[in-house]
Amino acid sequence: MKLLLANPNTTQAVTDRMAEVARVAASRGTEIVAVTGQVGAPYIATRAEAAVAARETMELMANHAPGCDAAIVAAFADPGLGGAKELLDIQVVGLAEAAMLMACMLGRRFSIVTFATARGPWYREAVEYHLLTSRLASIRCLDAPFQDIAHVRAELEALLVQLCVRVVREDEADVIILGGGPLAGLAGRVKHLVPVPLVDCVAAAVRQAEALVALAPRKASERTFRRRAAKPITGVSPALARLFGRE
Amino acid sequence: MKLLLANPNTTQAVTDRMAEVARVAASRGTEIVAVTGQVGAPYIATRAEAAVAARETMELMANHAPGCDAAIVAAFADPGLGGAKELLDIQVVGLAEAAMLMACMLGRRFSIVTFATARGPWYREAVEYHLLTSRLASIRCLDAPFQDIAHVRAELEALLVQLCVRVVREDEADVIILGGGPLAGLAGRVKHLVPVPLVDCVAAAVRQAEALVALAPRKASERTFRRRAAKPITGVSPALARLFGRE
Amino acid sequence: MKLLLANPNTTQAVTDRMAEVARVAASRGTEIVAVTGQVGAPYIATRAEAAVAARETMELMANHAPGCDAAIVAAFADPGLGGAKELLDIQVVGLAEAAMLMACMLGRRFSIVTFATARGPWYREAVEYHLLTSRLASIRCLDAPFQDIAHVRAELEALLVQLCVRVVREDEADVIILGGGPLAGLAGRVKHLVPVPLVDCVAAAVRQAEALVALAPRKASERTFRRRAAKPITGVSPALARLFGRE
Amino acid sequence: MKLLLANPNTTQAVTDRMAEVARVAASRGTEIVAVTGQVGAPYIATRAEAAVAARETMELMANHAPGCDAAIVAAFADPGLGGAKELLDIQVVGLAEAAMLMACMLGRRFSIVTFATARGPWYREAVEYHLLTSRLASIRCLDAPFQDIAHVRAELEALLVQLCVRVVREDEADVIILGGGPLAGLAGRVKHLVPVPLVDCVAAAVRQAEALVALAPRKASERTFRRRAAKPITGVSPALARLFGRE
Amino acid sequence: MKLLLANPNTTQAVTDRMAEVARVAASRGTEIVAVTGQVGAPYIATRAEAAVAARETMELMANHAPGCDAAIVAAFADPGLGGAKELLDIQVVGLAEAAMLMACMLGRRFSIVTFATARGPWYREAVEYHLLTSRLASIRCLDAPFQDIAHVRAELEALLVQLCVRVVREDEADVIILGGGPLAGLAGRVKHLVPVPLVDCVAAAVRQAEALVALAPRKASERTFRRRAAKPITGVSPALARLFGRE
Amino acid sequence: MKLLLANPNTTQAVTDRMAEVARVAASRGTEIVAVTGQVGAPYIATRAEAAVAARETMELMANHAPGCDAAIVAAFADPGLGGAKELLDIQVVGLAEAAMLMACMLGRRFSIVTFATARGPWYREAVEYHLLTSRLASIRCLDAPFQDIAHVRAELEALLVQLCVRVVREDEADVIILGGGPLAGLAGRVKHLVPVPLVDCVAAAVRQAEALVALAPRKASERTFRRRAAKPITGVSPALARLFGRE
Repeated sequence: MKLLLANPNTTQAVTDRMAEVARVAASRGTEIVAVTGQVGAPYIATRAEAAVAARETMELMANHAPGCDAAIVAAFADPGLGGAKELLDIQVVGLAEAAMLMACMLGRRFSIVTFATARGPWYREAVEYHLLTSRLASIRCLDAPFQDIAHVRAELEALLVQLCVRVVREDEADVIILGGGPLAGLAGRVKHLVPVPLVDCVAAAVRQAEALVALAPRKASERTFRRRAAKPITGVSPALARLFGRE
Repeated sequence: MKLLLANPNTTQAVTDRMAEVARVAASRGTEIVAVTGQVGAPYIATRAEAAVAARETMELMANHAPGCDAAIVAAFADPGLGGAKELLDIQVVGLAEAAMLMACMLGRRFSIVTFATARGPWYREAVEYHLLTSRLASIRCLDAPFQDIAHVRAELEALLVQLCVRVVREDEADVIILGGGPLAGLAGRVKHLVPVPLVDCVAAAVRQAEALVALAPRKASERTFRRRAAKPITGVSPALARLFGRE
Repeated sequence: MKLLLANPNTTQAVTDRMAEVARVAASRGTEIVAVTGQVGAPYIATRAEAAVAARETMELMANHAPGCDAAIVAAFADPGLGGAKELLDIQVVGLAEAAMLMACMLGRRFSIVTFATARGPWYREAVEYHLLTSRLASIRCLDAPFQDIAHVRAELEALLVQLCVRVVREDEADVIILGGGPLAGLAGRVKHLVPVPLVDCVAAAVRQAEALVALAPRKASERTFRRRAAKPITGVSPALARLFGRE
Repeated sequence: MKLLLANPNTTQAVTDRMAEVARVAASRGTEIVAVTGQVGAPYIATRAEAAVAARETMELMANHAPGCDAAIVAAFADPGLGGAKELLDIQVVGLAEAAMLMACMLGRRFSIVTFATARGPWYREAVEYHLLTSRLASIRCLDAPFQDIAHVRAELEALLVQLCVRVVREDEADVIILGGGPLAGLAGRVKHLVPVPLVDCVAAAVRQAEALVALAPRKASERTFRRRAAKPITGVSPALARLFGRE
Repeated sequence: MKLLLANPNTTQAVTDRMAEVARVAASRGTEIVAVTGQVGAPYIATRAEAAVAARETMELMANHAPGCDAAIVAAFADPGLGGAKELLDIQVVGLAEAAMLMACMLGRRFSIVTFATARGPWYREAVEYHLLTSRLASIRCLDAPFQDIAHVRAELEALLVQLCVRVVREDEADVIILGGGPLAGLAGRVKHLVPVPLVDCVAAAVRQAEALVALAPRKASERTFRRRAAKPITGVSPALARLFGRE
Repeated sequence: MKLLLANPNTTQAVTDRMAEVARVAASRGTEIVAVTGQVGAPYIATRAEAAVAARETMELMANHAPGCDAAIVAAFADPGLGGAKELLDIQVVGLAEAAMLMACMLGRRFSIVTFATARGPWYREAVEYHLLTSRLASIRCLDAPFQDIAHVRAELEALLVQLCVRVVREDEADVIILGGGPLAGLAGRVKHLVPVPLVDCVAAAVRQAEALVALAPRKASERTFRRRAAKPITGVSPALARLFGRE
């Protein structure tokens, strides 16, 4: 099985980190194809950046999905997820989507913990988008500076663990999602330091993508995610234009 | 007062139609600056097209907002609205946002009626995005072919009126929003044929933008729509890059 | 355009204050007709007082709406709003209704800040009545004595600003509504002291009333706010009895 | 035990009917004091009429509650209920409130069936006011003429039973509330003709009022229904003014 | 009237305490038949224990309901309530169900206060099961040791009162339910020490059961709680097997 | 990896069918241990039967989980799931839980289709229990007789496919879950006959259980699903008593 890990952030080092975690999380025989956005922000934190990223997600998928069995939107709040589900013939899953559904099996209410306050409003919109507010305990963002997005996981590890512990006590979280690609791999490292289960969003997405491939559902020909009529579209890459044009 | 009407659809004729309706709806002294997307679909109907449009909205605003007092996202389900609210120093309002809030004053529950079934899921996500599901009666889409998006309003007028009447009876709608820029102006023409108030989304947005300018609230320096830290961004127009970079 | 500002509180000085703010907020050419309740409490703070006020609102409107283009229920939690919408042939809007819808464009979640704890439960019912709980961050009431309801705005200004700042930090409010007619005009005075937008409920109502008049929707002949069959009613003013009787 | 049945409708014959049903439903030893509104509509069906009735409810209670152990707002959507709970030192319960809570024990979702379409929106607001939308299956109103409100129960009996049966099948109601004082007593007559339990709102209110008296909870001295500070109020009856003034 | 008080906890002393409170709360002429579970935990605090208790509730009812007019599931979060409502021909009510519905008449939002933290998640599920989350202020559990479940009420009285007072101030509770059979009778003892009404769940259940009997609704022959087709069932008591088999 | 498939229904043939589907769905190297309830109904359809099954689920798990890596509650509405999550040191997942979360990735709103009307209310409670009502389109039950629960899948195949197609059209379902162990394997057989994706609950549960094992989260030591203090429990199997007693 081949999984496309499409990172609409433009930082290659974060893609590399996610790919590494994805390969460890994957079943034997699963190959990870990891690609990085060319247009946009080094790491997406706001709705404005996510709006740029949403199109980049579709560009990455149009250009790299052929030959893959499923695709992962590898930015936490899933920019472009709905569009990608409409356009592609393979299954598509987002980091936030997969992590939240996984968290639902591990507790009644989950919190999302991340490393930058700017991400809060965008993350909340992701929970609302997935209509999972009923399962949300809180979203909590560390308000601490860091040097390098590629090493933010290591730089802030101790502070993030402290925040997770507070979230359990203060927000009544039953399970915590570590939100954001740059935190990939952290859950496994610190899980014995926090008294509730931690969810790694990259590992969750890989396993959910595999599960979808195994389940082998048909793509919808009616209702919300069905392929739409061919449509001319201008100003995008030839591959994306072909996808819209259904050639 | 100068209002930017930024249409992320790529059909100039639809922009012209909306601008005409906007000018009629505006207060004396309000000038409408109408611009059309260069990248994307001739008329946006799906999430995939909306994801392309979201970035185009921000491009249009980055390039044309300077000198304006407020801006309107002139595509019904408001692609790029959140991002534009973050980026711009002026107020921004969306067609769906303005129409729904206006509808809330005219009835307890509104329906949205539009002319293409492909729009249904995307429109529903817009209602959910604005957290107004509690006020929604239904979303109903005409399933009829049309020749030309620029004249869809006239081509389908009779069928749309019929659908509106059915929506009042069957879905218990207290008020109906005619959704989509191509339907701008229709509400005024047919209002006596439907037994509940109709909301024209372009007229609503113009009046809400004017109201926001009149109210003159400060832009937030904290919480959800505050301007964020400067961020390098690649692959976008110089104007948009400058906006992200806060130059 | 002529707008009726119907204050069901019995304090003329508060009406005067609201009328002054309304005139500043209004478009050129809009005339404000301000009237004050004769029956009820000097300032409404509880459900019991609001129940008396609801009828007084309808009395004021029955007697003063003729000749006006729209009417405003000029008490924050909108006593009598639904009844007035049913009875009158012109559009009717409430202070809380207008302020909340305006706030929805300025942030994801609003708080309401007011000057007397007794108002809390009644204000919460107003948010629930408008089915906007999904957009509510909190309702916060200053618990401080004041001398004169007509000058409460000035007396408590500093404390209200402090409370607003706390509400942003503690309740995650994106925008704050200053609730209550006696606070009319305060938002404009202190807006640079609070880090999120403030909404003045009187200014919002004036602009929303104007927008409704401009939009010129028909009054419903079916569903929730349609005029009802003529009904004899006893014990009310002749004007109100005529309105019920549809003479 | 003495229960005040305060009917803010102005039709004595409906009060008589309700009092008769109340006496049958009451425990031995419970006395029913039934009073009728002097101001307002012969039977309340709209929000406008309910706004007039809300004050009349408080007038009736101010004048007749002394000496009673609990009071019932004897109009289905409970006009003035919140105000009465604030003002009186005895427990107060509404017909809709009692019927809905009773219905919650008899099924997962209840429908309300009544005899006049004008009542639909007002009844829906009553369900929303009590925050019980999660338990509502539907509100259904017979659209049939009747001669005399005092005999509507008998005139429309067969049609109402038919409607109840349809509501079970079409709306998935587990239990049905017959809404409106004029239908008091009908549930008992026709219960074997409808396949789910029927709730008589007058009988429910009597039993709930008795239960509240038996439970003997204290009146709140803090939070939502606590007695408020004395307040001067003008234009109401001396008894009501005294209640507001806490003499 | 004869009411079955079926306690699926296995502690006879708690049954005795509840029976005593029930007898005081009951109307004259009501007889209380109190029975205690033979299988399960001495006092149920977790979902696992509640799952064992759910079946025990049905066993107790199958064996003791004959001859009774209504039955009470005498453990706070109502284990087995839905099943018992399906199986029995008499009305069945739960302690949590009755207490919450009673609380709804005494305030807008209730809190549940209990004596053991382990009960929190299970109690929350009970509120969710009854679809009453909209009326919930909080669930708060004392975290203090006690010696004997039969005397926990007396041992922890002072601490529980303190917690109730904090819940009013911190969680904005309008009314407090003292949750759990072992606290039966406490509400009456301490009601003047807490500034909002307290609800005794046993007293509430007795009065609600009596009200249901008085209302005399039919048992459903359609929809959610109707008796189902006869079904063979193995491994249960002969009485319960007969109930399933509809002999 | 070893997965326990614990069927609290008492029909061995249904267990066999589920085990067969589970083995096909599982990854290479996953072993399925399938066990069948001894106490209860041949196939669970009501809340009463589910209450018996909840305890049987825990009995099966107490006796067969040792040596397994994760456990599946193999009855659709997940009787005993919460209790099993509390008691066991391995991960536990339910058929409904897994199927619904899987469905959430395949569409915005799912319907559940099953073969017996008696199941409707119980299934709805399962959706409510998982707080996923926001994602539910409908629950639809075939109302057709069948001969043998072990072959109901084949007997009713054509009728179920017809119902699925109607559900897509009438209820706007984006994805359909075939609910109930006896339907295991049907989704794969008929997926090209229904225009939206179908979810097989057994296959979904196997893959979700594998994903949980792969993710390797810690078991909570605080909050909702933490292991509780040892508790004596009577009348259950020695294995289950040991689990409660934490020996």
